[in-house]
Amino acid sequence: MNKKLYDFQIQNLGKRTISAPISVSRFTPDHERVMFDIGLKDYGESEKAGDLPLSIEVAGPRETIYFDPSKAKAAIVTCGGLCPGINDVIRALVMELYYRYGVHNIVGIRYGFQGLIPEFGHDILDLTPEVIKDIHSEGGSILASSRGGQDIGKMVDALVRMNISLLFCIGGDGTMKGAEQITQEITKRNLKISVVGIPKTIDNDLPFISKSFGFDTAISEAVKAIKCAHVEANGAPMGIGLVKLMGRHSGHIAAIAALAESDANFVLIPEVPFDLEGNKGFLKMLEGRLKGRGHAVVLVAEGAGQDLCRKEDESVETDASGNIRLYDIGIFLKEKIGEYFDKIGMETNLKYMDPSYMIRSVPANASDSHYCGVLARYAVHAGMAGKTGMLVGQWNSAFVHLPLKTVTSEKKPVDPEGSNWMQVLESTGQPPSMKND
Amino acid sequence: MNKKLYDFQIQNLGKRTISAPISVSRFTPDHERVMFDIGLKDYGESEKAGDLPLSIEVAGPRETIYFDPSKAKAAIVTCGGLCPGINDVIRALVMELYYRYGVHNIVGIRYGFQGLIPEFGHDILDLTPEVIKDIHSEGGSILASSRGGQDIGKMVDALVRMNISLLFCIGGDGTMKGAEQITQEITKRNLKISVVGIPKTIDNDLPFISKSFGFDTAISEAVKAIKCAHVEANGAPMGIGLVKLMGRHSGHIAAIAALAESDANFVLIPEVPFDLEGNKGFLKMLEGRLKGRGHAVVLVAEGAGQDLCRKEDESVETDASGNIRLYDIGIFLKEKIGEYFDKIGMETNLKYMDPSYMIRSVPANASDSHYCGVLARYAVHAGMAGKTGMLVGQWNSAFVHLPLKTVTSEKKPVDPEGSNWMQVLESTGQPPSMKND
Amino acid sequence: MNKKLYDFQIQNLGKRTISAPISVSRFTPDHERVMFDIGLKDYGESEKAGDLPLSIEVAGPRETIYFDPSKAKAAIVTCGGLCPGINDVIRALVMELYYRYGVHNIVGIRYGFQGLIPEFGHDILDLTPEVIKDIHSEGGSILASSRGGQDIGKMVDALVRMNISLLFCIGGDGTMKGAEQITQEITKRNLKISVVGIPKTIDNDLPFISKSFGFDTAISEAVKAIKCAHVEANGAPMGIGLVKLMGRHSGHIAAIAALAESDANFVLIPEVPFDLEGNKGFLKMLEGRLKGRGHAVVLVAEGAGQDLCRKEDESVETDASGNIRLYDIGIFLKEKIGEYFDKIGMETNLKYMDPSYMIRSVPANASDSHYCGVLARYAVHAGMAGKTGMLVGQWNSAFVHLPLKTVTSEKKPVDPEGSNWMQVLESTGQPPSMKND
Amino acid sequence: MNKKLYDFQIQNLGKRTISAPISVSRFTPDHERVMFDIGLKDYGESEKAGDLPLSIEVAGPRETIYFDPSKAKAAIVTCGGLCPGINDVIRALVMELYYRYGVHNIVGIRYGFQGLIPEFGHDILDLTPEVIKDIHSEGGSILASSRGGQDIGKMVDALVRMNISLLFCIGGDGTMKGAEQITQEITKRNLKISVVGIPKTIDNDLPFISKSFGFDTAISEAVKAIKCAHVEANGAPMGIGLVKLMGRHSGHIAAIAALAESDANFVLIPEVPFDLEGNKGFLKMLEGRLKGRGHAVVLVAEGAGQDLCRKEDESVETDASGNIRLYDIGIFLKEKIGEYFDKIGMETNLKYMDPSYMIRSVPANASDSHYCGVLARYAVHAGMAGKTGMLVGQWNSAFVHLPLKTVTSEKKPVDPEGSNWMQVLESTGQPPSMKND
Repeated sequence: MNKKLYDFQIQNLGKRTISAPISVSRFTPDHERVMFDIGLKDYGESEKAGDLPLSIEVAGPRETIYFDPSKAKAAIVTCGGLCPGINDVIRALVMELYYRYGVHNIVGIRYGFQGLIPEFGHDILDLTPEVIKDIHSEGGSILASSRGGQDIGKMVDALVRMNISLLFCIGGDGTMKGAEQITQEITKRNLKISVVGIPKTIDNDLPFISKSFGFDTAISEAVKAIKCAHVEANGAPMGIGLVKLMGRHSGHIAAIAALAESDANFVLIPEVPFDLEGNKGFLKMLEGRLKGRGHAVVLVAEGAGQDLCRKEDESVETDASGNIRLYDIGIFLKEKIGEYFDKIGMETNLKYMDPSYMIRSVPANASDSHYCGVLARYAVHAGMAGKTGMLVGQWNSAFVHLPLKTVTSEKKPVDPEGSNWMQVLESTGQPPSMKND
Repeated sequence: MNKKLYDFQIQNLGKRTISAPISVSRFTPDHERVMFDIGLKDYGESEKAGDLPLSIEVAGPRETIYFDPSKAKAAIVTCGGLCPGINDVIRALVMELYYRYGVHNIVGIRYGFQGLIPEFGHDILDLTPEVIKDIHSEGGSILASSRGGQDIGKMVDALVRMNISLLFCIGGDGTMKGAEQITQEITKRNLKISVVGIPKTIDNDLPFISKSFGFDTAISEAVKAIKCAHVEANGAPMGIGLVKLMGRHSGHIAAIAALAESDANFVLIPEVPFDLEGNKGFLKMLEGRLKGRGHAVVLVAEGAGQDLCRKEDESVETDASGNIRLYDIGIFLKEKIGEYFDKIGMETNLKYMDPSYMIRSVPANASDSHYCGVLARYAVHAGMAGKTGMLVGQWNSAFVHLPLKTVTSEKKPVDPEGSNWMQVLESTGQPPSMKND
Repeated sequence: MNKKLYDFQIQNLGKRTISAPISVSRFTPDHERVMFDIGLKDYGESEKAGDLPLSIEVAGPRETIYFDPSKAKAAIVTCGGLCPGINDVIRALVMELYYRYGVHNIVGIRYGFQGLIPEFGHDILDLTPEVIKDIHSEGGSILASSRGGQDIGKMVDALVRMNISLLFCIGGDGTMKGAEQITQEITKRNLKISVVGIPKTIDNDLPFISKSFGFDTAISEAVKAIKCAHVEANGAPMGIGLVKLMGRHSGHIAAIAALAESDANFVLIPEVPFDLEGNKGFLKMLEGRLKGRGHAVVLVAEGAGQDLCRKEDESVETDASGNIRLYDIGIFLKEKIGEYFDKIGMETNLKYMDPSYMIRSVPANASDSHYCGVLARYAVHAGMAGKTGMLVGQWNSAFVHLPLKTVTSEKKPVDPEGSNWMQVLESTGQPPSMKND
Repeated sequence: MNKKLYDFQIQNLGKRTISAPISVSRFTPDHERVMFDIGLKDYGESEKAGDLPLSIEVAGPRETIYFDPSKAKAAIVTCGGLCPGINDVIRALVMELYYRYGVHNIVGIRYGFQGLIPEFGHDILDLTPEVIKDIHSEGGSILASSRGGQDIGKMVDALVRMNISLLFCIGGDGTMKGAEQITQEITKRNLKISVVGIPKTIDNDLPFISKSFGFDTAISEAVKAIKCAHVEANGAPMGIGLVKLMGRHSGHIAAIAALAESDANFVLIPEVPFDLEGNKGFLKMLEGRLKGRGHAVVLVAEGAGQDLCRKEDESVETDASGNIRLYDIGIFLKEKIGEYFDKIGMETNLKYMDPSYMIRSVPANASDSHYCGVLARYAVHAGMAGKTGMLVGQWNSAFVHLPLKTVTSEKKPVDPEGSNWMQVLESTGQPPSMKND
């Protein structure tokens, strides 16, 4: 993440003249900011003397707001794959808008951005407290979702037609790109519609976002699969439990799940390439572990080892959201492990698990419920204050406002030299490198 | 289940002269039996006048026992696939033998019947209360398991060499066949070793056994997968959640899970054949459901629809336990559903889940823990009384002794005309037949 | 339970002329019955020669029904304390009536029998599939409940005013008494209203009912408390974990929970009186256990040891439902244990837990969800067939119809000479008697 | 927390000459520090120009270590009340010492500081990987615990007698005070024993520690109780669910649990005093809520409202750890609420729950397991590097070393003007003040 590329300045719809109707002990002034870097060693080095350090706007209720609650109308849309906590975000957005600000006109757009395109014919949902009061005990999204972008002009037409003042977009980097384009079109047309993102990625790979909602729940569920893999690996002679976990570009789920359930012995992630064959390769290491301890548990992120699967002249396929279609590294590994031990004449018992859909569609756990509520309330504060083209997120321990484009430009990887990966190596005992170089 | 084939008589090692050292308010006499049939309509019809109705010996502590606790040595072996509750059975066997009867010499055979064959070199585990006191909170088997039979003579040699008086076998029908052969060899050699089975099958398809241990836990876990499938199906336009569940020969898990989580819309089981194509076929029915309600949840037992997958001239493969290798009906259906909706030009979103290993390797739930403890204590009572070649089970609401061979001869299917399947049809709204003719 | 007092004959509203609109593979004829006793030893002894044995009518869909689905209107009421599974019953009643029989007119009576009395001013809820489709994931009752009876005449007036054809009452013995009186008033007025009970008691103490719904979930939750008590008892020198569990008249929850979580060392229930003091009394036994093992877990049913708490000349208080106000045996024991060990100068660490409300207000587990759905569907079949003054229940392994009065006359105790209590003694190692004489 | 009082300098045993045997991609140098304040507004204000901002030493593996692993012997002790995650910390300490550093001599002190005093006669536990490999699935502490301090000299005598090089103390502020005194005695005697704390408080009220382990699990469990309270409150006319939660000095658990389960309507904590009576008092507010919505859920931290319970001339009692004995605010409120509604003639249904022991004795959830593992590994790195009189903790997003005395001097309260409490007010709709003046 090259922080130097960003200015972290937040766009505003205009002058604010309305006093916030909410009752809080302290309002957050617009100029309140937190530093980007917290390390003392960077202090005075990375900035010229006299410069202020790079910093980010702090989220919170503003004393004056832009929209008149009695006239404002809010819309909520959920895009991309399911993730624990979406319903918690929807619920808290509605509760805060309705009870704290007095915005009683709230609608839900169904099936993602499709719901803003008339041709799809999806209905609009009226979101009242009565409708949403119990949705946090269900997984998924009551609005449902879809993948892929839609025509920007048509979507803004729909917002105008429905008289929307605030659009809350819950989605990943593709969605945030769409929200950014919607904001630009709104600005071009000189409309007064605030666009606020609540970033969602179960993979936790958004840059400048310490932790995305649903990630903690994903770890809790991944841990259950790892426990089962451990039981299976111990339940038969030379047992191997192989678990594929989510993580297209980054191995955060696999790495943190390994730390949360310390029975994992190998963690394979996209950021740390490995060889299969050879003296230092994964298969030899696995053989050593089996011979030493009689069983092994292997976690593999779905984006790991893609170089091993790809044939030389293959072209790359993409899905409706523009995501590259990945090779199924789980099935690939299962086969390669089988072949290897067949070849060396060692009988093993491999059990393969792919719990992905059982991880992402559960209700949020307590920690994520809490987190989703906080994000949603800060999103409402920002939107009501007329901030736009932005999203709410957590950086270090503070809740902040970030420009939408900040999080769409790159991915946040697991740092192979950072403390999380170091902890994984310590906890698993896996060698730092499984490349033969 | 043709009950007429069986006499339900239990074999005994010999005359009992020792008073049971346990303190209970009532001992169960050997002649206490429960009737096989409880229906009044059968009464007087199926038996000749004057005949006693078919009945089964009731389990319970006997006032006199065969083995001297201070000299007896017990062995426990676990065979076949993992199943919730194995550790609960092991724990309760040890606790009952140790504390109630005073048998302090108890060993665990590792990796199934392999552990009785010297060539495998598996160690023997001393099972004391200290070793086993907390094992019920872990899934799997602390003794581990293996598939397939071993040489009967060598196994009996091992029992003799180790001076075993009681062998407790936890396993499925293959294991019970093995236990039956071991019993015959013991009888032939005129040895005084009691062989008692605790029947295990997560599929709940043993005849003359109302419910096998682990089945209730399996349903609890299957329900979690169905909930996720329901969330996924609702989370995208025309969403389909397809869940493969265990059940090689019988659809008990799929059927009961559908009743426990009523969001399932189709249940496909081996006992009820179905067509894919045609006006009454499954795919047409699925299309109707999707068009009417916008989403669908489909459960399929692993043994369902094998006739649809098999090509005409294929031969049948078997695994180490002699089980037929099944076609993967889950993957097959996933592909066929995809092809069908592609062909008719209807966009759907199918999510496929195969939670099998996450179902069978969890710890037992409260109900199964209770049940496993009861089975184990009755197994100890039977073994100490010198009964052999038998297993403990539940029939109607009574715990009973059954000859080993009773449960190895056939499978207990879901009765397509019985009340469980009727309830499934009512709960899902699925048509009674999806065959075209 | 003196079965001789009952004739087990079911009352019918009248002649049936309508064909059931449901699609099942087999209808259950009215004359299908199961035997009351399944023991072979009772056979021929307890009945005179030639007499048919005592038997009970089997539940199931009848081929002809009494009510015209297009004109019938059903009402559902939930009374008494909360219990896991009530919402599952409500949901399945509505689904079966609506989709299987085509009864589209279904209302929910709020706050128990209060909801039938105009003076309380409670609203009536329209129960459509849309309203109830997700309620099974919430604990409690969406209709809410209340204790105590109401004026029978006024309640029947309300049923007439609302044009109700079928009244489904979910409740305990008090509710079933009320339902019986309502049935009598309906019969007296010659009305055509079917009254069907679905018996509810978390204590599992209804006679002629093998297991009441919610009991299995209650055990699951009680087990969590026992695990915590065990951890606390082990976490400090001479730790005692004391858990009070539900069970006003019977110790079923305490007994079965002790079997499901085998770390319990003492189980105190109303059916087995005990002394506190003296050489064989509970306190001396507890002292022995602590000295021997350093910790102890004690379960006490709320109705246990009432004779120990009561002072000689005290009068008995009752609540709105007519239940006797019990002494708080949990607090009483906590104090007595404290006093005892203070007196003998032994330092102990007692942790007291009363998890009752956290047990009864959770959603049903998978097993109870299944069971509730089955009960509800059988209740609908019975009601639509014009049966009245009855309830659905399970006896041995069959689902049956029982006259309402059968279950209101007495309680089903834990049998101190039965196999469950014997198993508790074996599992805990508790002495069969803690009375000094 | 007056940060100016502390220098955050870490004590070292002496010069380090041994290369760390561990394999990591990057060692953490001793001079790596993070800033105490992350707010930009503080920047340049609170420090004189040229001064470095206040900062804290960063945790991590050091390239050179003080102790020779082959000769070092480590001891682990757990003190104070139970808390989820203790076993995870013990397990990770042993695994890291054993497998990463090669320290094979590790002992567990039983029953807290008592275990270091010969008079108590507690045994010492050898902690090998085999012993501790599965302990993370159990709640509590395998070492057990006790309250209160012991003679410092005798404890250091024991450490010397056992030849301990590293003492890991898991406990709260009392324990850290003890550890500080042990460190001073060790320094005075010029011994080479490293004392490292892993701070434990389920209340999350240690200063300079962003989150203490077990807190996240406590919230998960508290949420279950709140859900039940919500179900109970909705299940009867004018239902009130009253839940007492832990929090002697601070309301962190109550506040965060209310955010994680948004059905709470009132949160009473020690930091925000309230009146019972009067127009703005709690009882009037509760009355308003009940009249408006028909039910209410109230959370109360155990230390809240102590001023309301105390009679004027009472003296203050303390327990073995020196903690003040609190009035039972839960029972007090239950009674006061009952009296109030009796007085105004409004019938209510109050259900009171005190889930404390069921919260603190469960196993750690995934997030806490992860966190405990990280803390333990950093504690080992610090101890092996010869750091002493310190503890490991998290500040903002960094893991740091803090002098023991830092966390023993004061408590970290919920800030009534901070964002957490503001969020609670927004989520519950509770008035900012329930004081009359």
